[in-house]
Amino acid sequence: MTATSQLTAEDLRQMGHAIRFLAMDAIVRAADGHPGTPLGGADIVTGLVSQQMKFDPKVPNWPDRDRFVHSAGHGSMLLYAMLHLAGYDKIDLEQVKSFRVLGSHTAGHPEFDIEAGIETTTGPLGQGITNAVGMAIAEQILNAEFGDDIVDHHTYAYTGDGCLMEGIAAEAIAIAGHLKLGKLVYLWDDNRMTDDGPTDQAVTEDQCVRFENNGWHVQSVDGHDALAVAAAIEAAKADPRPSMIACRTFIGFGIPRIQNDRAAHGGKIFVEDTDAARANLNWPHPAFEIPQAIYDNWHLAGQRGAAERQAWEARLAALPEAKRAEFNRRIAGDLPEGWEVAIHSVKQRMADGEARAGIRASGEVLAGMADAIPELISGAPDLEAATQHKRQLAPFTADDRSGRYIHYGVREFAMGAIMNGMTTHGGVVSVGTTFLVFSDYMRHTLRMAALMGIPGVFVFSHDSIGIGKNGPTHQPVEYLASLRAYPNMVTLRPADGTEMAEAWEIALSRKNGPTNIICSRQPLPPVRTGYEVENRAALGAYVLSDASGPRKATLLATGSEVAIALDAQKALEDEGIATAVVSMPSWELFEQQDKAYRDSVVGRGTVRVGIEAAVRFGWDRYIGEDGAFIGMTGFGASGAETDLFKHFGITADAVVAAVKERL
Amino acid sequence: MTATSQLTAEDLRQMGHAIRFLAMDAIVRAADGHPGTPLGGADIVTGLVSQQMKFDPKVPNWPDRDRFVHSAGHGSMLLYAMLHLAGYDKIDLEQVKSFRVLGSHTAGHPEFDIEAGIETTTGPLGQGITNAVGMAIAEQILNAEFGDDIVDHHTYAYTGDGCLMEGIAAEAIAIAGHLKLGKLVYLWDDNRMTDDGPTDQAVTEDQCVRFENNGWHVQSVDGHDALAVAAAIEAAKADPRPSMIACRTFIGFGIPRIQNDRAAHGGKIFVEDTDAARANLNWPHPAFEIPQAIYDNWHLAGQRGAAERQAWEARLAALPEAKRAEFNRRIAGDLPEGWEVAIHSVKQRMADGEARAGIRASGEVLAGMADAIPELISGAPDLEAATQHKRQLAPFTADDRSGRYIHYGVREFAMGAIMNGMTTHGGVVSVGTTFLVFSDYMRHTLRMAALMGIPGVFVFSHDSIGIGKNGPTHQPVEYLASLRAYPNMVTLRPADGTEMAEAWEIALSRKNGPTNIICSRQPLPPVRTGYEVENRAALGAYVLSDASGPRKATLLATGSEVAIALDAQKALEDEGIATAVVSMPSWELFEQQDKAYRDSVVGRGTVRVGIEAAVRFGWDRYIGEDGAFIGMTGFGASGAETDLFKHFGITADAVVAAVKERL
Repeated sequence: MTATSQLTAEDLRQMGHAIRFLAMDAIVRAADGHPGTPLGGADIVTGLVSQQMKFDPKVPNWPDRDRFVHSAGHGSMLLYAMLHLAGYDKIDLEQVKSFRVLGSHTAGHPEFDIEAGIETTTGPLGQGITNAVGMAIAEQILNAEFGDDIVDHHTYAYTGDGCLMEGIAAEAIAIAGHLKLGKLVYLWDDNRMTDDGPTDQAVTEDQCVRFENNGWHVQSVDGHDALAVAAAIEAAKADPRPSMIACRTFIGFGIPRIQNDRAAHGGKIFVEDTDAARANLNWPHPAFEIPQAIYDNWHLAGQRGAAERQAWEARLAALPEAKRAEFNRRIAGDLPEGWEVAIHSVKQRMADGEARAGIRASGEVLAGMADAIPELISGAPDLEAATQHKRQLAPFTADDRSGRYIHYGVREFAMGAIMNGMTTHGGVVSVGTTFLVFSDYMRHTLRMAALMGIPGVFVFSHDSIGIGKNGPTHQPVEYLASLRAYPNMVTLRPADGTEMAEAWEIALSRKNGPTNIICSRQPLPPVRTGYEVENRAALGAYVLSDASGPRKATLLATGSEVAIALDAQKALEDEGIATAVVSMPSWELFEQQDKAYRDSVVGRGTVRVGIEAAVRFGWDRYIGEDGAFIGMTGFGASGAETDLFKHFGITADAVVAAVKERL
Repeated sequence: MTATSQLTAEDLRQMGHAIRFLAMDAIVRAADGHPGTPLGGADIVTGLVSQQMKFDPKVPNWPDRDRFVHSAGHGSMLLYAMLHLAGYDKIDLEQVKSFRVLGSHTAGHPEFDIEAGIETTTGPLGQGITNAVGMAIAEQILNAEFGDDIVDHHTYAYTGDGCLMEGIAAEAIAIAGHLKLGKLVYLWDDNRMTDDGPTDQAVTEDQCVRFENNGWHVQSVDGHDALAVAAAIEAAKADPRPSMIACRTFIGFGIPRIQNDRAAHGGKIFVEDTDAARANLNWPHPAFEIPQAIYDNWHLAGQRGAAERQAWEARLAALPEAKRAEFNRRIAGDLPEGWEVAIHSVKQRMADGEARAGIRASGEVLAGMADAIPELISGAPDLEAATQHKRQLAPFTADDRSGRYIHYGVREFAMGAIMNGMTTHGGVVSVGTTFLVFSDYMRHTLRMAALMGIPGVFVFSHDSIGIGKNGPTHQPVEYLASLRAYPNMVTLRPADGTEMAEAWEIALSRKNGPTNIICSRQPLPPVRTGYEVENRAALGAYVLSDASGPRKATLLATGSEVAIALDAQKALEDEGIATAVVSMPSWELFEQQDKAYRDSVVGRGTVRVGIEAAVRFGWDRYIGEDGAFIGMTGFGASGAETDLFKHFGITADAVVAAVKERL
């Protein structure tokens, strides 16, 4: 990457001002928005984009582009103004003027849209810089496989103080430093001001020491000197460590009333402010009007990028056919031919009649798919043994980028955001696993995956009181409900190995949202016997075992409780009560079926009993207001698994009694 | 505090072994448990408890006792063995033998029980050390008011590597260092081993540099030398900064097969292992048998503490009557006389007919209660302006411990755990506020509060698409459901200022679980007119506006959507359709009412429509499977608030149409 050396410091100053005025004019027009960041960070982004960043705005999805993550998402106009000036067609002047208007691409916070140059959704602080770690990991994984000619790009993340205060930042910084992600560069907008006021109100830590202590390369520059920023980026690229560049700036730079004041963070600005800024910065141009010479200077970077992109395409074309096809397949996010054969091979094995712990079954599926899907990357936050998803995979380390298992350390939140970053980067299929209770620690990353509409396989184990003696801190009771409440997410709780294989088939097929696979720790006796081609779990719920005659009762259950339902069915049928058992691995998929199917499955008009070792919340939709529910009414307890199921009354006897009481 | 100087190094070695053998024998008996920590950390805890800690096991709730938090909760037998040896009656030998048995006090992970010496529930990593920050803050707040004679204790937290890797640890360390909590001491069990293996597999950071960089006093000692640990604690007490003592240990110390091996973390151990340990450590005593001489040495600390406790009681007795009563009241967790007068004074003001944003109304309640409840401590994670809960309160800072508002920085997770720590410490009423979307960042702390059964007022603002232009990253849609799914938690979504005052009255009255108050950003027109003494929100749901005749339709709504329901009611009544409006501020409180009341309120047999700017999940319980729901079906969007309600069809017109379609 050669810097765009023909631009002078004054050119760059004007280019930065172009960001500032587009941003402030858009914010005034929207009567809403955060002015502090775009005004303060304009020169940082100008230095990066004009001098260092590799991208072609006309081919925004060029796989080997540098990634730029605007982690301080509230300052979104910084990103939009830059994208507009740099030549991304999707962010035209109308979009800038439509900032925060319903239906625009210029939402209040940046929303994942590669065509628009937006590499990930940001706003919830700390996650953007962690997504960037994931992107840098994905780059290294693909680089190891396809070589420098095809995959060799940097990942830049623009961060404010807020992102760095969040706990997830510590996790991200630790992992990136530990893994020596040398192509990752953080640009810290060091403006010493947050919404509450000066950062010294809440921060004592020296950020430079902090990063150095985590193995990062650290520099400090004047953040209003774009050339200095660019030179620091050049030095960052030359260093083998991940780099943090502390760019000293003034928040709200240019508007005298708010500059270097907490009011700049998210406070309102008005036409009088933009007038004052125009006088202050000697910017005579009307609102939304950028002189062509400034546009021309902004477009130089994209033109340089276009040439690089063309050279890259030539290199790609020169690859052996199979290699090129493989690269293109991965980037397209298509699974390799033969993956269905592999999953059905696993499914056949799962029909062997053996009782497997849910998490073991899931691990066996992963083991069975790892060769078929070479881009499948697994990992866990220091629960390798308990979650059993390392299998034959070597670790991804600072020394070995061919590894496919990430030891995240005890850092759940970062794991989720890194997985999302790997996914938005493209080229990998990301699997992460931890205990279901710890999904709370990473919960917001699940939300971001659902909101972005990106896939991801989240395997959550130890799903109920079935874990036994570790006690209520480790026994989920409210989690299934809280996950099912999400839009655009599929949560599957398989009842046995066969449903587990089906859950994985569903998860791997999904392209537009994340999938949670909920696993027991205790063994699940098979509830389906024999191998079937059909993926019955894909219906969301289905009659697993029908009644012997006209149905009087319907038992609806998920996961480990399906076996209890079958036991209860046997007892009821023995007493002449025609009873059906419905397995409901995924409520979301069931909701996608037509009403006639749904009504027939849930057995409206029959006595309905929901059985799940979790709270009732949400179940009334399937069992009705008057249905019986056999499950938890509070938190669990520490004790032997079998004692706990009895103690909390989650037994076949209780189901039988509930049916008879209602008949 | 004078060290127990008569004990020799050999005495202390034997005392540590007593922990080790009780722990390993209990784990073998339970056939479950984590041996690594109790074996490795035994000498650390011995040094602390025998030489430095101020406590009286016969009066475990002595308010000025030192607090000890066992943050690495999986190693719970370390805590139980110590408590038993130190003389806590509730942890007798039978309890040690009943480790992990259903109904015992010796659960898999420590469960909050002050009588047993368990200061907080731990297990989910990182939260214990952050609870400790909250305890240290509470101590300082009470110390500032009641003086050194009455409140002057230390807070110790025992932490492993897992806790330190969690992001919340970074937040805790940053806040504690920034606030110069000099009476906080972390004992880091530096065994360089986690469940996945050597820590250098995931950690590069130098922990000592990390803490120093956050303003902590740092020492390193041999963690198997109890006297060295005690001396370091003595030095820590003398330093004005919070202290971290790195105690180098070997995980699983004593059992040759697992010592210094990842298998020690949570792997199974057997009688052969305890036999080998007995030979290895020269411990000839049978399982669960501790020589009286060792018990005697362990009891010295408690005897020393008893004398200190008696002296403290004399000082308390010498306080002026009013001061003593005030101290006792606070520690008992009783609200001051007159608080109801204050809340009703606010409630009267709320009936002035003015439309207030929910968050503003909540802030006004806080402002109105701050003088009446001097122990009320507020705070937010860098959202002071937007959440409006600082009001007249001065900040709690390193220099001013009389402040009652905590600037947490952008650290939601730590805020929640600090609030819980303040609450379990006692003497304060903790209020924290942030945006509802960011409640995910602190979600697991809500779970811990519910699990512990401790109060806490969690105010979550910006509760729906009503926030408008900030867009879907900031618009909760699934959060109400995910909070309502919790056991032992009350979530209130007030419809106007009157319900807001009622919500606060409920929250402040609760002693056995946390309360969430969900607030709009946009103004809420009053739906109740005139002041009423009765707290109608306490019913959970109630008929706000009855039908003009025999009820044909029932509109059930919460928060900002209650006003929409009233508009729809008017239109329906105008068309001759007798319609009632039900306000449902709290589903949990409604569930506590009897069935007859519930059935009458929800209007079974009438056309029912639920109205809430969130997902339907959970609503079927009140509107039935066939009820209509006017709300969200997916994530929100960035745009003007009024545009969004129209765009997503959450309007009175839509409600009217839904009723008419079903009639």
